[in-house]
Amino acid sequence: MNANADRGVNHEDELRALREALQIRLEQLLPPGEQQDLVYSAMREGTLAAGKRVRPLLLVLTARDLGCRADRPGLIDLACAVEMVHAASLMLDDIPCMDNALLRRGRPTIHRQYGENVAILAAVALLSRAFGVVAEAQSLPHACKTQAVAELSGAVGLQGLVQGQFLDLNEGGQARTPEAIVLANELKTSRLFDATLQMAAIVADASPQARQRLRCFAQDLGQAFQLLDDLADGLSGTGKDINKDQGKSTLVALLGAEEVQQRLRTHLRSADEHLASACHQGAATRRFMHAWFDRQLARFGQDNGLSRDAISTGA
Amino acid sequence: MNANADRGVNHEDELRALREALQIRLEQLLPPGEQQDLVYSAMREGTLAAGKRVRPLLLVLTARDLGCRADRPGLIDLACAVEMVHAASLMLDDIPCMDNALLRRGRPTIHRQYGENVAILAAVALLSRAFGVVAEAQSLPHACKTQAVAELSGAVGLQGLVQGQFLDLNEGGQARTPEAIVLANELKTSRLFDATLQMAAIVADASPQARQRLRCFAQDLGQAFQLLDDLADGLSGTGKDINKDQGKSTLVALLGAEEVQQRLRTHLRSADEHLASACHQGAATRRFMHAWFDRQLARFGQDNGLSRDAISTGA
Repeated sequence: MNANADRGVNHEDELRALREALQIRLEQLLPPGEQQDLVYSAMREGTLAAGKRVRPLLLVLTARDLGCRADRPGLIDLACAVEMVHAASLMLDDIPCMDNALLRRGRPTIHRQYGENVAILAAVALLSRAFGVVAEAQSLPHACKTQAVAELSGAVGLQGLVQGQFLDLNEGGQARTPEAIVLANELKTSRLFDATLQMAAIVADASPQARQRLRCFAQDLGQAFQLLDDLADGLSGTGKDINKDQGKSTLVALLGAEEVQQRLRTHLRSADEHLASACHQGAATRRFMHAWFDRQLARFGQDNGLSRDAISTGA
Repeated sequence: MNANADRGVNHEDELRALREALQIRLEQLLPPGEQQDLVYSAMREGTLAAGKRVRPLLLVLTARDLGCRADRPGLIDLACAVEMVHAASLMLDDIPCMDNALLRRGRPTIHRQYGENVAILAAVALLSRAFGVVAEAQSLPHACKTQAVAELSGAVGLQGLVQGQFLDLNEGGQARTPEAIVLANELKTSRLFDATLQMAAIVADASPQARQRLRCFAQDLGQAFQLLDDLADGLSGTGKDINKDQGKSTLVALLGAEEVQQRLRTHLRSADEHLASACHQGAATRRFMHAWFDRQLARFGQDNGLSRDAISTGA
C-alpha cells in the first residue's frame, strides 16, 4: 500500500496526478503524428478526449489497495488497455446501425466526425491495440499478461460487451422483465469492471478469496453505474444525447425513478461491503468510488452518505 | 519434423487430416448450442463455413518445417485464432459501409444473413475471442503466448488489416500509383501472413535469421495472394461477387493482366526462395504453397511450374 494514503495526503491531488499519468501514457501509446490519417485521428479522439477514466483509475487504485505500488511499471499499461477497450466500445455503440448517437463526452460522436467506416475501423484498431498493450506491458511476468489478456477477451466478447449491446439492440425496444434488463446491464457494464478489477488482482497477486469478492463488487458497481446512466438520461450536461432512452425498456421506465434510486443505493452499499472485504489493507478505491457517486447523485438532489460513512470509518 | 513427411506419406491425405483437425478444434472453440442467439450464429457461420484455411494450414506446416511436432498442443489453437481473425476481417470488409459485398465463400455475406449490426458485433466478438484463444492456448509457455498476442495485435491494427482496408476505401476509387497499391496489399494481406508465420516461429523457437526470412516470405506471399485475388475478380466460381473491382484502382486495372501475371510469378519464385532458406529441415509448407498456387493459376490457363521444380528438388 502506498504510504501516502496513511499520511492523509489530499486524495484529490493523488487522483489528479494519477489522471495525468494515465493521459501521458495514453498519449505515448497513441502518439500524435505517428500516422497522418483519419483512422488514427479517430482512435486518438475516441481515447484521449476528456473522459472520466473510471475504469483505469479503479484498476490502479484497487491494485494499490491490494498491496501493489501504484507506480509499478506495467500497471498503468493495463489501465490504458482497459480505457482503450472502453473507448472502442463507445465508438461502436454510437454508430448509426447501433444506437445512432449524436453526442458523446460533449462532442459529436466519432462516426459523425469521421464517417461510419472510419469509426468501425478505429474501434477495431483500438481493441487490437489494447490486447497488444497488455501483451507488451512493461515489467510484468508473462503469466500475468496472458491472464490479463484472457480476462479482457472475456469481457469484450459474447459473454460481455458484445452480448450486452446485442441484448439492448434486440430487446431494448420491447417490453422486457427487470431480470432481463439486469442481465443486459451486467454484460454491458459489470463484465468490463470485473475484468478491470481482476487485472488489478492479477498484478497484485491477490488471493482467490479477494478475487471472488472483487467479482461481487464489480457486479454491484456495474449495476449502479448503469442505473445512474439511466437516471441521467433526461438530464442536460451529461455530454451525451438527452432522452436517448425514450421508448427503450430501462428499469427507470419499468419501475420509476424512485425505485431505481433505491436500487442504486442498495447496490452501492453492497458494492462497498464487497470492496471493503476484498481490500483490507486500504481504502483508496472506496474513497474514489464514494466521492464519485456522491458527486453524481448530488445532481439528482440525492445524498447516499457514503462519503461521510467512509470518512467516519477512517477509509 | 514429423517423420511422415520423410516416408513420403501422401501429402493430400496429411492436409485433409490437418483440415479436419482444424475444423474440429474450431467447433470446440465455438461449440453449437452454447448460445442461442444471432451474434453467436454469425460467429459460427463466418468461421466454420468452408474456407480455404490457408493461414492456419500455413501456421501448422511452417511450425513443422521449423522442427516442431504438428500435433504439439497449442499449435492448433494459435492456428484457429488466426482463422478467427481472418474470418472477422472478412465479415467487416463485406459490410455496406465498407465493400458492400453480397457473396462470400459462395453464400450471402454475414450482414445479409444477420443484419449489419450483428455482423459488426460478431466480428468484434471473434477478434476478441482470438486473443483469448491465444492467451489460453494449451501447453505453450506464457512467453510464447504474449509474443503471439503482440504479433496478432500488430497484424490487425493500424499497421495491418485496418489500415489496409482504410487505404482501399479511401484511395481505391481514385487513381493511385503501383507503389500505393502494393502498400495497401501488404497491409491487407502480407501482415496477417507475417503474424501467422511468426507465431509458427515463436512456437518452434526459430532463430532470428529464420524469422527474418519468414517475414520476407510473408511479403511475397501476401502480394501473390492479392494479385491472384485481383486476377480472379472477373471469374465466376470464386464464391465472391464478380467484377467487384470495377472502377477500383487495382494493379490489374493499372498494368494489365499479363504484367500482373508476370509479377505474380516473380513473387512466387521469391517467396519460394525465402521459404526454402527459412526452413532447411522440411518442405511441407513449400509443397502446400506450390500445389495451392498451381491449382489457382490453372484457372487462368497458367502454369508456374513450381510444383515440378519442388518435386525435382525433392521438396
